[in-house]
Amino acid sequence: MSDRSYLDWNATAPLRDEARLTLEEGLALLGNPSSVHAEGRGARRAVEAAREQVAALLGAFPAAVTFTSSGTEANMLALTPLIETAAEKRPRSQLIISAIEHVSVRAGGRFPREAIAETAVDSEGRLDLAALQEAVGKTPRPLVSLMAANNETGVIQPVAQAAAIVHAAGGLLHVDAVQAAGRIDCDIIALGADLLTLSAHKIGGPKGVGALLRRSEDIHIADPLMRGGGQERSMRAGTENVPGIIAFGAAAAAASRARAAEAAHMRLLRDQLEAGLRAISPQAVIFGADAERLPNTTLFAAPGMKAETAVIAFDLEGVAVSSGAACSSGKVQPSHVLAAMGVAPRLLRGAVRVSLGWATTTADIEKFLKAWTKLATALSKEGRGIAA
Amino acid sequence: MSDRSYLDWNATAPLRDEARLTLEEGLALLGNPSSVHAEGRGARRAVEAAREQVAALLGAFPAAVTFTSSGTEANMLALTPLIETAAEKRPRSQLIISAIEHVSVRAGGRFPREAIAETAVDSEGRLDLAALQEAVGKTPRPLVSLMAANNETGVIQPVAQAAAIVHAAGGLLHVDAVQAAGRIDCDIIALGADLLTLSAHKIGGPKGVGALLRRSEDIHIADPLMRGGGQERSMRAGTENVPGIIAFGAAAAAASRARAAEAAHMRLLRDQLEAGLRAISPQAVIFGADAERLPNTTLFAAPGMKAETAVIAFDLEGVAVSSGAACSSGKVQPSHVLAAMGVAPRLLRGAVRVSLGWATTTADIEKFLKAWTKLATALSKEGRGIAA
Repeated sequence: MSDRSYLDWNATAPLRDEARLTLEEGLALLGNPSSVHAEGRGARRAVEAAREQVAALLGAFPAAVTFTSSGTEANMLALTPLIETAAEKRPRSQLIISAIEHVSVRAGGRFPREAIAETAVDSEGRLDLAALQEAVGKTPRPLVSLMAANNETGVIQPVAQAAAIVHAAGGLLHVDAVQAAGRIDCDIIALGADLLTLSAHKIGGPKGVGALLRRSEDIHIADPLMRGGGQERSMRAGTENVPGIIAFGAAAAAASRARAAEAAHMRLLRDQLEAGLRAISPQAVIFGADAERLPNTTLFAAPGMKAETAVIAFDLEGVAVSSGAACSSGKVQPSHVLAAMGVAPRLLRGAVRVSLGWATTTADIEKFLKAWTKLATALSKEGRGIAA
Repeated sequence: MSDRSYLDWNATAPLRDEARLTLEEGLALLGNPSSVHAEGRGARRAVEAAREQVAALLGAFPAAVTFTSSGTEANMLALTPLIETAAEKRPRSQLIISAIEHVSVRAGGRFPREAIAETAVDSEGRLDLAALQEAVGKTPRPLVSLMAANNETGVIQPVAQAAAIVHAAGGLLHVDAVQAAGRIDCDIIALGADLLTLSAHKIGGPKGVGALLRRSEDIHIADPLMRGGGQERSMRAGTENVPGIIAFGAAAAAASRARAAEAAHMRLLRDQLEAGLRAISPQAVIFGADAERLPNTTLFAAPGMKAETAVIAFDLEGVAVSSGAACSSGKVQPSHVLAAMGVAPRLLRGAVRVSLGWATTTADIEKFLKAWTKLATALSKEGRGIAA
């Protein structure tokens, strides 16, 4: 599909070369990391080296990294009333999430539905810190979950300020950094996060691997999601996905090295894309454009555009884009993110997400703009009552 | 490590060539299977083809296969009070397991500890059907979990008979077929299983993938372990491990084709190994030897042998074996399987497991026997009070 332009990196990124090579080496690692023989010890060493690489991307302690099978699993593991700290072992009764979290956070982990509260965002899709302050004031020792950057709009959240508010109230902060990691700095200490979720395939590692990082080993999850064997320091039972984990490590190391350059590259192309979009369609809306955003994400709508139809039209032109999140098996539902931002109902089903990556080229942007010109012309004819 | 003999296939098997090739192809599949564009649809097709291959190994319906990240996850998913059938949606209050289940079944999934009952096995490590009959008589509509074959002894369980007892009591049967699949026939209908767990890396697929199969789509798990996106027909949220899943499919297809020939090959070598073992050490005990066993597994003990020391001694001789299950991060604990079989306490910490596979050769068996001769001689000298 070399004639195609893949602009759906927030759904999944291609595997980095470093990760592919490491994964292929990992396929030849025979042992089970829990086995004491040479084969087992070799697999164990590889997993522990990857743990250091993933920890380094976030400035975390390797021992506080738990490998999971996905970001979703890391979120399910993190969101439990039974998170203990060295100082406090009592269960936490309330989960507070922002109104724009990923569906796997909205599901609330192990909290009962009635124990989950949502906090508002502003019209640019940024967490409303005053609303958070008010929410934690009503809830002793809450667990709060706030994403580092939104998957649909790319809007970066005020995580460090939120952390200060949460900690002052005796709460703990979980940060879903799935979309932010590798694109902006996500140092776990600078963010003030107590728990942080990562997904390998969003940073150029393989699908099927994620991680939950803790600020320190003092933070303990008393009810692991997977129980049985003693793997991952008894935080996650089940034979480790050795090739996937070590490829995740390689991707984390590569993302860490390349982040500044890749971010600059993506920002340039993103700005080029948005300038073109506005030139072709002055009436198009780019969501969160006045907020600080990831360098790679543009979510836009134009009057009369239906997301489902637009995504298919782009696809036929050889351009892969999406209608918001990819997680809901292709069905386009009104975006809860845009709804929380107070976007007009007529635009809710019309937003298209374009997300770039390190391998995106100017030619990809030109191809997108050419396809958009065609689509916008058709829309405009429809709008005038002439069949397209 | 080509000079080594890997005889720990029950801990993990090497990747089959078919699975490696398929996995490497899968690494180039760019899309997220939930995306509607061509890249997404390509990934989706590959996952669905693998679902058919995995279903075919067990005689199951593809739509009733849910991919997970491990056998442990499949067990955690299956063992819940909220398993519904088309006829009955009331929660099940009791879980009955055999006394020799894998630790991930012993953990009991989502059942509270006090709701889990254990059923005895006989001295050969086979489920006691009369004890099961008695247990289900006391428990209306139980969920029962019985492994198809034991991971330590290889002893094959009377699953079809157990299923008849369970179903007569209005119960449901979950079968952990992780060690049995690919080695003996495990047709889900013939076994009478309502739910069945598989792990890819035990049949020559990659680590990091498993599956839960249901007898039909009428069996429904109302509380998925992973919630969020609508993947796996809403039975398991999270982006699919596309390369891992399609490699699992390839391994299942290869295992299905080769099973009879591989089983005969393993049985021949296993018999050769056991004959050699008995010739060298007439006092050695082979556990479950009088029961029907998998063709690849030998668990044995000899007077004075300590498992931990023996595994290291074999490793130094270039032979990888294990002390029972590999799942507990290298620590040798007294085997709950042998304890349930009523094995004498002096042997509980002394059992060594040798498990073979399709690539095992006569040379591997000879190497094992040579190493055992050396170790047995040392043990015998120790036994006579002479320093080895």
